[in-house]
Amino acid sequence: MKGEPVKYTYNTRLEWTGEKKGILKCKGKPDIVTACPPEFGGHPGVWSPEDLFLASVEVCTMTTLLWFTSKEDLTLKSYESAAIGNVELVGGVFQFSSITIKVKINVLSEGDRLRVEKILKKVKHACLITNSIDTNVCIEPEIIVD
Amino acid sequence: MKGEPVKYTYNTRLEWTGEKKGILKCKGKPDIVTACPPEFGGHPGVWSPEDLFLASVEVCTMTTLLWFTSKEDLTLKSYESAAIGNVELVGGVFQFSSITIKVKINVLSEGDRLRVEKILKKVKHACLITNSIDTNVCIEPEIIVD
Repeated sequence: MKGEPVKYTYNTRLEWTGEKKGILKCKGKPDIVTACPPEFGGHPGVWSPEDLFLASVEVCTMTTLLWFTSKEDLTLKSYESAAIGNVELVGGVFQFSSITIKVKINVLSEGDRLRVEKILKKVKHACLITNSIDTNVCIEPEIIVD
Repeated sequence: MKGEPVKYTYNTRLEWTGEKKGILKCKGKPDIVTACPPEFGGHPGVWSPEDLFLASVEVCTMTTLLWFTSKEDLTLKSYESAAIGNVELVGGVFQFSSITIKVKINVLSEGDRLRVEKILKKVKHACLITNSIDTNVCIEPEIIVD
């Protein structure tokens, strides 16, 4: 209906399995074992809430960029990124103080490189997760004509 | 060193695997297949950035509560939760407008129920992820003496 607000709802479930661990569930998707990380008294080798949070920003950055490239019919040769998130004690409570996403994109031509550069300027503003957080997100792109 | 700011760093990696999909990596942990969700032109049955974001809030709520119960030597019988996240178009961009976490905890005595109630009042303020986001988080607890 015209003028109706656009709204989507997401659902996850969590079951505590003892110690500082749990199992994450999302209907129709593979379960994820999760835990408090070792630095906060938890467990190594398991996805922590900090990892999942950082990952959500990293993935949304990629999918937002892919939304623009798809719309513009622009083909990428490859895309990979590395995300670094810093957590600091601010005013007595821990929080993510900064996130950097190093993006490496291979494109087919110099023209495509310029188009990806233009798209990257729009990604941060359009990214649903970045729009939902307080933490400053810095995207550091490396675009290679290959 | 006394007075030195407390800081932790987290790292994730992402590799695009074609279409709107990618593989999430975190050193020493199982890979997670991820994708843009169907409502934004992506794929069903795969963890989306929206799912991961919501999950990070849900898990951090549990691990923060477990930090308090562990500190107070309080034993829970069980803990499970269901998280509901709403995404809305606000000012032309999508963002999480609200998150509700329905927490169900079984405890061993009426005394423990009162202790958990007191802890739950501190959880939101102490939760690292909730402290990093703009979205309002509402915790709806159900504590059962079992």
